[in-house]
Amino acid sequence: MNKMNRITIGMNPGPARHSTLRGYHFGMIGCLVLFFLPGILIFAQPGAPVAKSSAPDSGKWALVIHGGAGGPARGTMSAESEKEYLVKLEEALKRGSDILAAGGSSLDAVERVVRFMEDCPLFNAGKGAVLDEEGKAELDAAIMDGRTGMAGAVAGVSVIKNPVTAARCVMEKSNHVLLIGAGAEKFAKEHGLDLVDPSYFITPERLKAWEKWKSGTQTKPAAPADKPGNSGPDAEKHGTVGAVALDQQGNLAAATSTGGMTGKMVGRIGDSPIIGAGTYANNQTCAVSATGHGEYFIRNVVAYDLSSLMEYRGLSLEEAGKSIIMDKLVRQKANGGLIAVDREGNISMPFNTNAMFRGVAASDGRHEVAIY
Amino acid sequence: MNKMNRITIGMNPGPARHSTLRGYHFGMIGCLVLFFLPGILIFAQPGAPVAKSSAPDSGKWALVIHGGAGGPARGTMSAESEKEYLVKLEEALKRGSDILAAGGSSLDAVERVVRFMEDCPLFNAGKGAVLDEEGKAELDAAIMDGRTGMAGAVAGVSVIKNPVTAARCVMEKSNHVLLIGAGAEKFAKEHGLDLVDPSYFITPERLKAWEKWKSGTQTKPAAPADKPGNSGPDAEKHGTVGAVALDQQGNLAAATSTGGMTGKMVGRIGDSPIIGAGTYANNQTCAVSATGHGEYFIRNVVAYDLSSLMEYRGLSLEEAGKSIIMDKLVRQKANGGLIAVDREGNISMPFNTNAMFRGVAASDGRHEVAIY
Repeated sequence: MNKMNRITIGMNPGPARHSTLRGYHFGMIGCLVLFFLPGILIFAQPGAPVAKSSAPDSGKWALVIHGGAGGPARGTMSAESEKEYLVKLEEALKRGSDILAAGGSSLDAVERVVRFMEDCPLFNAGKGAVLDEEGKAELDAAIMDGRTGMAGAVAGVSVIKNPVTAARCVMEKSNHVLLIGAGAEKFAKEHGLDLVDPSYFITPERLKAWEKWKSGTQTKPAAPADKPGNSGPDAEKHGTVGAVALDQQGNLAAATSTGGMTGKMVGRIGDSPIIGAGTYANNQTCAVSATGHGEYFIRNVVAYDLSSLMEYRGLSLEEAGKSIIMDKLVRQKANGGLIAVDREGNISMPFNTNAMFRGVAASDGRHEVAIY
Repeated sequence: MNKMNRITIGMNPGPARHSTLRGYHFGMIGCLVLFFLPGILIFAQPGAPVAKSSAPDSGKWALVIHGGAGGPARGTMSAESEKEYLVKLEEALKRGSDILAAGGSSLDAVERVVRFMEDCPLFNAGKGAVLDEEGKAELDAAIMDGRTGMAGAVAGVSVIKNPVTAARCVMEKSNHVLLIGAGAEKFAKEHGLDLVDPSYFITPERLKAWEKWKSGTQTKPAAPADKPGNSGPDAEKHGTVGAVALDQQGNLAAATSTGGMTGKMVGRIGDSPIIGAGTYANNQTCAVSATGHGEYFIRNVVAYDLSSLMEYRGLSLEEAGKSIIMDKLVRQKANGGLIAVDREGNISMPFNTNAMFRGVAASDGRHEVAIY
């Protein structure tokens, strides 16, 4: 069963306020759409499946975020530390829901949320990423636009301040989906993205975790694949970050960003930047961002599997998400979770670990952040 | 419709010969299985879904290979050049079918075939790979074992002689699925794989194609994603290589290897090394290797989509393959094809390009190589 021990904090904006916003934005967006319609038609990318929105300016929106699924059992984190995470989740949620409530795009919302979490040292993405076997942060991120079916990703980068923004730049300004390493960094530089020294990403906490990992392993870090190996509590506690959203135009989007696993081999890429594994969005079905033991999520093509179960087998978002995380992955002893939203604004946040840092906000008044 | 203008050459081994082989191998393998059974049970990887074989030592096997889907319309290649390709496809087919007919594993067969095609300068993988914007060969490969659900891949490597063997090494000797760049090369070196100077991969023909591409583009190579851009005839003519197989134990496997596209950006990764996009195998459904405009294959999660259409919608291998390549991808103006085999030994080789270099051999006597 889905572990839904929710801690609800923050204000519930309530439906009344949103009725007002709906009316205002319907008029404004309606005018904008009519004015720019020829341009929109010209710029729609012919190679990509431009899916229909569920409804023009429905007034309905939803946002789900995660800050990783992992090990801390209830009671092992200090109350202070828990609160710190909940506050940051709340702030991340606010950044995305402000965009969505104002009629902005799901793509802008998920990028904004993930950027915020990349900049926050608490989470394993951007600043505060875990360190690889050589003590470096190697970062991966992906973004996907459910309206157009377009996607972008970067992997194995170590000087791009916000990998999710680089992923969006790959999607919008190259003819590729996935760029890695120095090539991705050169591309980011050419497009004027913020670059930083690799030391920017390293926090005292991650360095301590890495030193502990290092002292505990004098053998090679590559344990056989059947052993969870270096994916213990320290490595997984504060995993990957991600966001999925439905906007008022009925468009879905997903974004994920990560530093991977403490002590991972140099050059190891997990599921986060793999379209279909850790990140996927399709207006016809759902938007998904996953977190967990990446190798299992790649082999099980988790994010697209959820979409397929909805599209081909007719499962609901909740049924599909649970069947993958609580059944298929549990049978494989694979740890993790995912967040997902469908075109109706239904959400699902299944996880088979002790905890998953997460939050949800929606136009119907749902609003919460939670750990366990 | 599937363009099946087959050119059948080579000997048809016929069913009689295989009946004999079946009897011999049933005895031998039966003994081996009984002797090693405790070991097999111990070494089965608990984290992976060990799917049932369709039948122990069924005597049935099938192999499908491809040397890329691309542009050359019938009549544009010289008869001599066509023959050269057909001879090499035939040799590749023989290497794999010898293993399968002798009772070997599908995993060994697909690796052997892809290694041979990597070593052959005619194909865009290993020696003879196309060159990126800087005139270098950057190679990607993946392999997946349908019995265990395990997979391995390397991407953006330039000194590993046989990327497919490195992919298998990642699968069997690391706890990761995907390793990139220098990290993958360090891993390959540690495991004693053959390394070569980057110049080893460059053939005069590819250099000429690269010079032509270079002189034709003084602008940046990254055309917007809606324009096929640098994926013209020269780039796509002789794409990616791959193999899928069913062995006599009922196990499926898939492998793919590529040099990508002429003039691709440094660090660009296509679908080949992405599990679920260019490569996928699952004993319950099928083994798939794709070839074509990689970005579309990533966004459409092509290889796993085929498996999902079979598992969740109940389509046959042929129906699923055609619906993706001849319908979904055609609607997106995406060029390419795929090869696939299911647990019953059914095969599918749809492509929406003028040509796809390909071959099939099976225990029921099917045996052919073809271009158009």
